[in-house]
Amino acid sequence: MNPPYSVDLNCDMGESFGAYSLGHDEAILPFVTSANIACGYHAGDPAVMKRTVRLALQHDVAIGAHPGLPDLVGFGRREMAISPEEAYDMTVYQLGALAAFVRAEGGNVHHVKPHGALYNMAAVNPGLAEAIAEAVYRVQPEACLYGLAGSAIISAGQKLGLSVAHEVFADRTYQPNGTLTPRRQPNALITEASASIAQVVRMVKEGRVRALSGEDVTIQADTVCLHGDGAHALEFAQQIRVALREEDIAVRAHQSVSA
Amino acid sequence: MNPPYSVDLNCDMGESFGAYSLGHDEAILPFVTSANIACGYHAGDPAVMKRTVRLALQHDVAIGAHPGLPDLVGFGRREMAISPEEAYDMTVYQLGALAAFVRAEGGNVHHVKPHGALYNMAAVNPGLAEAIAEAVYRVQPEACLYGLAGSAIISAGQKLGLSVAHEVFADRTYQPNGTLTPRRQPNALITEASASIAQVVRMVKEGRVRALSGEDVTIQADTVCLHGDGAHALEFAQQIRVALREEDIAVRAHQSVSA
Amino acid sequence: MNPPYSVDLNCDMGESFGAYSLGHDEAILPFVTSANIACGYHAGDPAVMKRTVRLALQHDVAIGAHPGLPDLVGFGRREMAISPEEAYDMTVYQLGALAAFVRAEGGNVHHVKPHGALYNMAAVNPGLAEAIAEAVYRVQPEACLYGLAGSAIISAGQKLGLSVAHEVFADRTYQPNGTLTPRRQPNALITEASASIAQVVRMVKEGRVRALSGEDVTIQADTVCLHGDGAHALEFAQQIRVALREEDIAVRAHQSVSA
Amino acid sequence: MNPPYSVDLNCDMGESFGAYSLGHDEAILPFVTSANIACGYHAGDPAVMKRTVRLALQHDVAIGAHPGLPDLVGFGRREMAISPEEAYDMTVYQLGALAAFVRAEGGNVHHVKPHGALYNMAAVNPGLAEAIAEAVYRVQPEACLYGLAGSAIISAGQKLGLSVAHEVFADRTYQPNGTLTPRRQPNALITEASASIAQVVRMVKEGRVRALSGEDVTIQADTVCLHGDGAHALEFAQQIRVALREEDIAVRAHQSVSA
Repeated sequence: MNPPYSVDLNCDMGESFGAYSLGHDEAILPFVTSANIACGYHAGDPAVMKRTVRLALQHDVAIGAHPGLPDLVGFGRREMAISPEEAYDMTVYQLGALAAFVRAEGGNVHHVKPHGALYNMAAVNPGLAEAIAEAVYRVQPEACLYGLAGSAIISAGQKLGLSVAHEVFADRTYQPNGTLTPRRQPNALITEASASIAQVVRMVKEGRVRALSGEDVTIQADTVCLHGDGAHALEFAQQIRVALREEDIAVRAHQSVSA
Repeated sequence: MNPPYSVDLNCDMGESFGAYSLGHDEAILPFVTSANIACGYHAGDPAVMKRTVRLALQHDVAIGAHPGLPDLVGFGRREMAISPEEAYDMTVYQLGALAAFVRAEGGNVHHVKPHGALYNMAAVNPGLAEAIAEAVYRVQPEACLYGLAGSAIISAGQKLGLSVAHEVFADRTYQPNGTLTPRRQPNALITEASASIAQVVRMVKEGRVRALSGEDVTIQADTVCLHGDGAHALEFAQQIRVALREEDIAVRAHQSVSA
Repeated sequence: MNPPYSVDLNCDMGESFGAYSLGHDEAILPFVTSANIACGYHAGDPAVMKRTVRLALQHDVAIGAHPGLPDLVGFGRREMAISPEEAYDMTVYQLGALAAFVRAEGGNVHHVKPHGALYNMAAVNPGLAEAIAEAVYRVQPEACLYGLAGSAIISAGQKLGLSVAHEVFADRTYQPNGTLTPRRQPNALITEASASIAQVVRMVKEGRVRALSGEDVTIQADTVCLHGDGAHALEFAQQIRVALREEDIAVRAHQSVSA
Repeated sequence: MNPPYSVDLNCDMGESFGAYSLGHDEAILPFVTSANIACGYHAGDPAVMKRTVRLALQHDVAIGAHPGLPDLVGFGRREMAISPEEAYDMTVYQLGALAAFVRAEGGNVHHVKPHGALYNMAAVNPGLAEAIAEAVYRVQPEACLYGLAGSAIISAGQKLGLSVAHEVFADRTYQPNGTLTPRRQPNALITEASASIAQVVRMVKEGRVRALSGEDVTIQADTVCLHGDGAHALEFAQQIRVALREEDIAVRAHQSVSA
């Protein structure tokens, strides 16, 4: 019998560029079930994309496109005043580029997750969210759209009948309205591994998270974002895998349930 | 009954970028049967790619990816010492990006034609030629590979069982070995329209071209490269269409004949 | 005796890039007294910069650096969430690059004017304004800082003792607080040449402009921004030169008056 | 009394970019006397340039501009078919950008050393060499031009009256004509530290190096190129400093002796 609960563990990957190496993709792959691969706009280059796609396939990890803003020097983390049409265009372009490497290796694109500032803007700006969802819908309608749990990008995907995955964070605290506490505020981060894991387990099993204010907030936890750099990240990935098994929560790539 | 002869007329397109406009795509489209669309490395950007794909579909013109070297300021015309693996990677990336826009609009990628210095290098360097052909084969095996008639890229495509199109030039003179006279040499260009057209007609009907040396050279003319900028180019496109009709040569996109 | 009034006419230039041509620099140069030359981030490339510097020197037009955001595809017009330190860094970089071409030709950098979204952000964001002024102060303290009349960038320059030039617009309407009416609002643009010229003359002679609301606003008009593309722009440049002469207003590059 | 012999130790620096870190600049700075700082084309960005200039000044190390080809993904290591005019333009641009950061910090640009493929091409191509030398001459005539000992770039610099520094390599073997053994050949590298150091000492004191063929070649050793990444590089830098002191060879930045 299958465990009653399941969750996906995803991680950003393929963020190296040319002579520059970033992250520990090979080390983290055994612990995650889906990989978000940079597409050359904020990180990654064609050689890195090919290599990372191959690695993910070897580890039987679901592959996602990880499109970002065209800002290599800023790593896609600086918000830019782009129009919805520009968001559509850059998502189509990057998704297509990644999909070609996946196809060349005999795999399939499982999901799309916007990166950095594009992720943040798509969580709160319905126009951008709909444009990104439209790009996925027109290029790869069977792919799943990953985004901040309960945010605008999730609604936009659902409206088009896309499969969606609500993403939650193990190491971030939440506000009463279900959004993340901004990093610049105190208490934005959960630094203790046990507290991080407990938060994830409760989100998966109970669909709730305790906000900083003390009240409980309803949240859907389809996929958990893990970090790929630092020895600590690796250690945490191992810990959460053990904990989830003990809690009888299956860890597997999010299963597309198209409308 | 179909005319006994046929040829494809292709033209580079989608070379605008951001605020910069280049070429007269809309004006030339009625006269050509296939469009090579820049993919963002040497020219083009996501918005231009989308727009150009739509235009080509409206005019029922076959769409090709036109990958180039990563050299926007040099328009992909400066040779770079890239490895075959790098040629493979950049072809997969650009082909995939263009294919996504085509797919989003409900069309198909009909062919791939390398641009500028990448085209020239692929005509004479078997390692690069095979890498580019391999990229097409793994990403879009039903697509046709366009390249200099009788050159290394054509052989590379044939070896993999790809459909290929031998490309000839209306306004360039040929050498006894079937290559183009380099531009820096005198008599490299044919400036008179009537001579250009006569050369094309003979290449299509007789499979031969008179080299500068005076001797006849065997050549296969599947597709003719037209230029997209300048009023003269437009005028020539009109003239060659008329001439080909008078000569009973059908003008249509090259038909893929996979092995 | 010198005319009692004077004003500078400036124009953005050197916005071509690689194979892409933009603007009519040679045609507009005879009518302006200072040129803002793009530095390769939002437009321009090293070859274009060299060529434009030479042209400006031939026409005895004051040369300014025109730094922009690192966004070639967006032409520097999309706001980006950069930090003051990033604004400082990109101004130093671009100013230095342009200054080298000017030095190589035996000229001097007369002024610095931020471009597009950087210009707009520097007009209202004191942190960015001070960072840009600091960059000019540390690299080229004798240069004049051009910015929106009465805005944050002007104050930032004055605080450091830089020479500053209040910039006004001939073809834009003003709000009661002295800012420009945003382009997306109706009545943002003045389309009639005679009205544009009358507005400039009054700003220069009386130091006032009639806001859309009907009330008069105090404004300092050291330099007027002319546009460099379109036949209309050229025609307007000619008209305003004639009008200013008839009004006995001298047209010359803004004279640095350091504190 | 000064030691009768002296030599400069230089190292490439400032090669980090955005979120990407490369090299161990702070660790190597105490051991070298001149730093070649990347200028944003093949590596480096404005923030990295500023930081590296400050570090070099703190360590009292002579600062050089390290211009490269516009190929970030290839780290400037892939030869490109650029014209002399393009080499001039990109050298002026990058030298100017770096000079602005140096000026902002109150320092001086001591030298210019081309990077990677641009270095290699400038060593053998007189047209490119002269264009690069001309750029230095027109922008920063008091700066010293670093290049492969006895190569075309050295001659080009001398012809314009620039100060030049013949660069030698500790870990590379030489050919009978004084050029380096290409890396793809066996025996191109000297892997033993003691042999590397002995080669440098002999080049400095005797002006000769033993070629792979066994014969002695005349060579001028003004500056030695050290590597900045890897623990081994750091260790070697320490060893060569000790060895040079024991050999009574002063280590100091190359002193400009203009013609």
